[in-house]
Amino acid sequence: MVNRERVQRVQERMRQHDIDAYLILTHDDYRYFFGEDRFQPRAILPAGRPPIIVTFRGEEAEVRENLAADDVRIFGSVAQQMKDVVEVMRELAGPTGGPTVGVQMGFFTPAFLLTLFQKLNPQVTVVDIAPVMDELRMIKDPGEVEQIRGAGELAAIGMRAAVRALAPGASERDVAAEAEYAMRKAGSDGTATPVYVNSGVRSGWLHGTASGKTMHAGELVVIDLVPRYQGYCANLCRTFVIGSATDQQQTLFETYEAARMAARQATRPGVEIRQIDAAAKVAFDKAGYGEFYVVGISHGIGLSFEETPAPTIKPAEGRVAVREGMVLTVGHTVLSVPGLGGVRLEDTYHVSPEGLVPLTDFPTELAVRV
Amino acid sequence: MVNRERVQRVQERMRQHDIDAYLILTHDDYRYFFGEDRFQPRAILPAGRPPIIVTFRGEEAEVRENLAADDVRIFGSVAQQMKDVVEVMRELAGPTGGPTVGVQMGFFTPAFLLTLFQKLNPQVTVVDIAPVMDELRMIKDPGEVEQIRGAGELAAIGMRAAVRALAPGASERDVAAEAEYAMRKAGSDGTATPVYVNSGVRSGWLHGTASGKTMHAGELVVIDLVPRYQGYCANLCRTFVIGSATDQQQTLFETYEAARMAARQATRPGVEIRQIDAAAKVAFDKAGYGEFYVVGISHGIGLSFEETPAPTIKPAEGRVAVREGMVLTVGHTVLSVPGLGGVRLEDTYHVSPEGLVPLTDFPTELAVRV
Repeated sequence: MVNRERVQRVQERMRQHDIDAYLILTHDDYRYFFGEDRFQPRAILPAGRPPIIVTFRGEEAEVRENLAADDVRIFGSVAQQMKDVVEVMRELAGPTGGPTVGVQMGFFTPAFLLTLFQKLNPQVTVVDIAPVMDELRMIKDPGEVEQIRGAGELAAIGMRAAVRALAPGASERDVAAEAEYAMRKAGSDGTATPVYVNSGVRSGWLHGTASGKTMHAGELVVIDLVPRYQGYCANLCRTFVIGSATDQQQTLFETYEAARMAARQATRPGVEIRQIDAAAKVAFDKAGYGEFYVVGISHGIGLSFEETPAPTIKPAEGRVAVREGMVLTVGHTVLSVPGLGGVRLEDTYHVSPEGLVPLTDFPTELAVRV
Repeated sequence: MVNRERVQRVQERMRQHDIDAYLILTHDDYRYFFGEDRFQPRAILPAGRPPIIVTFRGEEAEVRENLAADDVRIFGSVAQQMKDVVEVMRELAGPTGGPTVGVQMGFFTPAFLLTLFQKLNPQVTVVDIAPVMDELRMIKDPGEVEQIRGAGELAAIGMRAAVRALAPGASERDVAAEAEYAMRKAGSDGTATPVYVNSGVRSGWLHGTASGKTMHAGELVVIDLVPRYQGYCANLCRTFVIGSATDQQQTLFETYEAARMAARQATRPGVEIRQIDAAAKVAFDKAGYGEFYVVGISHGIGLSFEETPAPTIKPAEGRVAVREGMVLTVGHTVLSVPGLGGVRLEDTYHVSPEGLVPLTDFPTELAVRV
């Protein structure tokens, strides 16, 4: 069903920003307003009238029934889909010329689609919709928090399966296979990022997918899971050593845990995200690893695996202040020391009136007995 | 290792197109030139000097060793990565002002990254690199064909596991789980698109991910797999009925098979992709389903799951002619009839000197006994 309350709220904000319509091209916002998803999520939210859904002919009946939307345009080809959009743009054009249309410019809006849209609609002024949408999406309602908690429970199931598969001779891919399978069987709609399983020298990567590399006793292994549940993501990351850890590995691990604890303590309403980074960096400095600190220990999460505030994507968002109702991860940065490897430990938290409430839960123990 | 032959060929073509450098931002082209992949694939290929790799500090040693590249710039933050790129842009600036830099504008180049690049480098003229790269990537060398065949073998393993899981009461997600797991265990690096498992009315979707919907006897089920093997994709899609098919379902299936056969026969050097569509559509027309024909029965495949010629992404590419050395899928369109459901059957082929050679192999039988 169309979430009419959210539509009204975005329409109000669009009017404040002098935006005539929001052209939805991404899965996250399509689901935010319509509660379901399509292979090609296409809709137009005018500031002053009900949403217009653009959908494939074979999905029309279902879309009409599920969404109870009045204005559904049908396409049978890419060309026709574009025509539908152009037609609506003409309808929106006021006496002053073309309308101002907002579009998400994030990771999942392909550059060519935006270029094509501008070419087909030269009268339209295209602006970034982020200032309108971020404000809404940043603050999660109780239903959203429960969906993220659901994703967090799947992540723990995946991590448990991954740990069981950790053994000398097993490949990173074997471990990823077990995690994915367990999460799927428990109800995940796949993962929002690839399952990262990185062992040995690869533990120091910024991120790395699971490869065919086999694991050896004594290696660091970083496992990072972002399952999806009803559209929502939770992020859970742990680092292990197969067998017993060396003193250096133990130090890396403890440094990371100290940084996380400092970051968690700093995470409260009014504090800017970059201040959380600053708090975490103190622990790196103390251990002599300050030069290896990579900014970005915390970020927003929800319908996207990384959403505002997300300073590793948009550095300026380091200045966004934490607010009650946000869902944030703590532990996104990697402590990567050339020659030693890397450690990352990440959990997902709700900034509730009672403080940080974890939405993911899994033991943090470095050594895995084999 | 840097594939120096490919670098030379792209440099030649860049000079022909008056492009001073190619800024690589996507996984497919990074792998094409360097034979491996990174979480953030960043490199610059100047037209007149060796490639410049931009990599995360923790990955430097490995990148230097694996690629044997001379010019590696290291970043420890997003801001620094941008500075590295800006610095190289300054180095490339000639006496006439800013350089002309090519960028991929496809699905995997986020709009914001391109916008940011242009803002940071106002002196740079940004152009689409596709005219340069498509010509190289369209024609596969023997090694690439074998990698796609490897992906095809994984797809058959996945399809076998999926079929075994088809049963009344099983969910689409259960079927996807088995397919993914089997492919992973056999060596896939995940899939290039989500695993599509669509049953009942959902079989008529344009595409739809695997949901929690349970399957019933007598329903159509479309299963579409695009595993990755060493970076390369193959596409295998089959449609089944759990139990026995109705006459109408059988007719849809046979119509699709007739269209595929016509399309395969039409697929030979010199024929334009849109002519393959035209050949396929005749079979739809004959069966009275002409109005439901969705253009796009064939597309290129390789390091991307859909690459030039890809008329469902870029309609103009319907005019690209088939050439020896291409790898194409046949069966990409869906025969979706509102009220009845949908059928899709897709395989991957090498356009060899001896004609179309299948790189995927799986029986096409509609009914699955339960």
